[in-house]
Amino acid sequence: MPELRKDPVTREWVIIATERSKRPEDFRREPEEQREEFCPFCPGNESCTPPEIVAFRPAGQPRDVPGWWVRVVANMYPALSIEGPLGKSGRGMYDKMNGIGAHEVIIETPNHDETLATMTTKQIEDVVWAYRQRYQDLRRDPRMKYVLIFKNHGRRAGASRSHPHSQLIATPVVPREVRDEIDGVTFYQQFRDRCVYCDMVAQELQEGERVMFENEDFVAFEPFASRYPYETWIVPKQHQNSFAAMQDSEHASFAKALKEVLLRIRICLQDPPYNYMLHTSPCDAENSDVIHWHLEVVPRLTIAAGFEMGTRIYINVTPPEKAAADLRAVETAAVPAQTADRQKGMP
Amino acid sequence: MPELRKDPVTREWVIIATERSKRPEDFRREPEEQREEFCPFCPGNESCTPPEIVAFRPAGQPRDVPGWWVRVVANMYPALSIEGPLGKSGRGMYDKMNGIGAHEVIIETPNHDETLATMTTKQIEDVVWAYRQRYQDLRRDPRMKYVLIFKNHGRRAGASRSHPHSQLIATPVVPREVRDEIDGVTFYQQFRDRCVYCDMVAQELQEGERVMFENEDFVAFEPFASRYPYETWIVPKQHQNSFAAMQDSEHASFAKALKEVLLRIRICLQDPPYNYMLHTSPCDAENSDVIHWHLEVVPRLTIAAGFEMGTRIYINVTPPEKAAADLRAVETAAVPAQTADRQKGMP
Repeated sequence: MPELRKDPVTREWVIIATERSKRPEDFRREPEEQREEFCPFCPGNESCTPPEIVAFRPAGQPRDVPGWWVRVVANMYPALSIEGPLGKSGRGMYDKMNGIGAHEVIIETPNHDETLATMTTKQIEDVVWAYRQRYQDLRRDPRMKYVLIFKNHGRRAGASRSHPHSQLIATPVVPREVRDEIDGVTFYQQFRDRCVYCDMVAQELQEGERVMFENEDFVAFEPFASRYPYETWIVPKQHQNSFAAMQDSEHASFAKALKEVLLRIRICLQDPPYNYMLHTSPCDAENSDVIHWHLEVVPRLTIAAGFEMGTRIYINVTPPEKAAADLRAVETAAVPAQTADRQKGMP
Repeated sequence: MPELRKDPVTREWVIIATERSKRPEDFRREPEEQREEFCPFCPGNESCTPPEIVAFRPAGQPRDVPGWWVRVVANMYPALSIEGPLGKSGRGMYDKMNGIGAHEVIIETPNHDETLATMTTKQIEDVVWAYRQRYQDLRRDPRMKYVLIFKNHGRRAGASRSHPHSQLIATPVVPREVRDEIDGVTFYQQFRDRCVYCDMVAQELQEGERVMFENEDFVAFEPFASRYPYETWIVPKQHQNSFAAMQDSEHASFAKALKEVLLRIRICLQDPPYNYMLHTSPCDAENSDVIHWHLEVVPRLTIAAGFEMGTRIYINVTPPEKAAADLRAVETAAVPAQTADRQKGMP
């Protein structure tokens, strides 16, 4: 069972993976973008993952067989375990608890060589529906305080497998990053009696120079204080406190915005490694109506070094106004949706 | 002039490098550990850096010529500029100011192929003296709120040059990371009426299992809630609020502890990339007596990915008790101090 330990100074939690713990020789450098020999996420290999939690597949099919187009399974090596009590305890000045939570993998397509940026909007919409279904299910578990949906694309962004997938981790604490966001929103609310994200959307749409894309329901822009080159946020134009508050009809516009952002980043920066993180309100009632949900996309082009680690002040070498202009200038019309040209591991 | 911009939600500052701004093609992947053609930090090339601010060299020598053993210069491409007013201003909901501050490079040795881990304790002590001299000078500037001394070793830890060097950046704001540390120390102080770091030192010395090294004045241990595998802190045993509060006689013990930590990490993990950051109190009187100064050393063995970025909860795959045992077990006696076998660029 992993362990959650609390830093006595910052009160941040850390997950200590006690079981799959690594030794010095395990950190030898791997060749970049090494091709995996075997992919458990490919159709035909369903028995090599934990059983499916949710899958979109033709009606009447049994579970854990090929035929699905989106499939959600528990992570084989979970950062947090779903079974057990929290077991909060102390030792001298230190606090810890059992590493309880959920860690799931959303396999975005059966096609190993596909990528979210080039999938059809319909397929992306189904991925978003899978996110939403798992998100709503897990936030009902009273032990869970927050559900984070995120994606690591490319080895240098932390992806250990190349088959397109996102992840979901539910935590038994409200993470520090989220508490800071809540504090910030609350502080602004007290000062101006308005939502800081709503104000941001209004100013960005008015100024326009940092906007990359907009449609009826969403705007994608480079934030004024972007920490990373080409960092892009996708924000609902109307205030919505939670990812689950999205109207059914808005899923298609969100999928369209996500595709547009990922495709422009892919073309402009030549398929860079990237992460995205869905920011939404915590599960508990007290904090459930604070955050204006949004998605933050971060291409991994630079390395956070000693200065960033020691101050949390980021040095961004590309002004967001310039990044937005570069991304707007990308010609996307000529790029066809990638076809399913290879399904590795098919029986 | 770089620009400091404030995130309206988290109130964190970001440095936007407007002048040396990078375009998409500038982010093409560089070959790892590529050897620089020309090293401006090597003796003989003094005219290729800004003039020296401080150098330790034989008495009577002129400036900016070979003969020094530690040399401090302004960074050629500073993240923050030393000249000018803060120029705080707003635009709609957004706040910004001029990127005022200091950015210096501490060249740790004339020998290009040397490394801090294998230098003599005396040479490391001189590097620490150079840190202290610049630290004390810069905190007198009323525009500066914090002085961070840090080191990036290896390309994957953000070092752009291989010649051994540390850096110093003085900022016109108290960084978020430091404010969180102050808040944490204050909160603990209110709760227990004691310094959290003093308590930590006491419990670590008593339990012993996370201690890697100790001498009369310092203890080096893996923190209970280590965020990174083999993360190691060097902490003064007696409470000292500031790096500048170190007694003259303690510089040698600090240099000894630093060498021991870096050498053990180097041997155990085969010269991994690493960062270290000196945590100390801010310059302003209000906050100048809070933090118990210490050095945090972080080998860069894993990649912070979407989960860490979205939550700031780190997943550490090596329990600190195991890391400390591995580092204690390293045999250091057989390793001779590296000799100056090559001085690249000597005239």
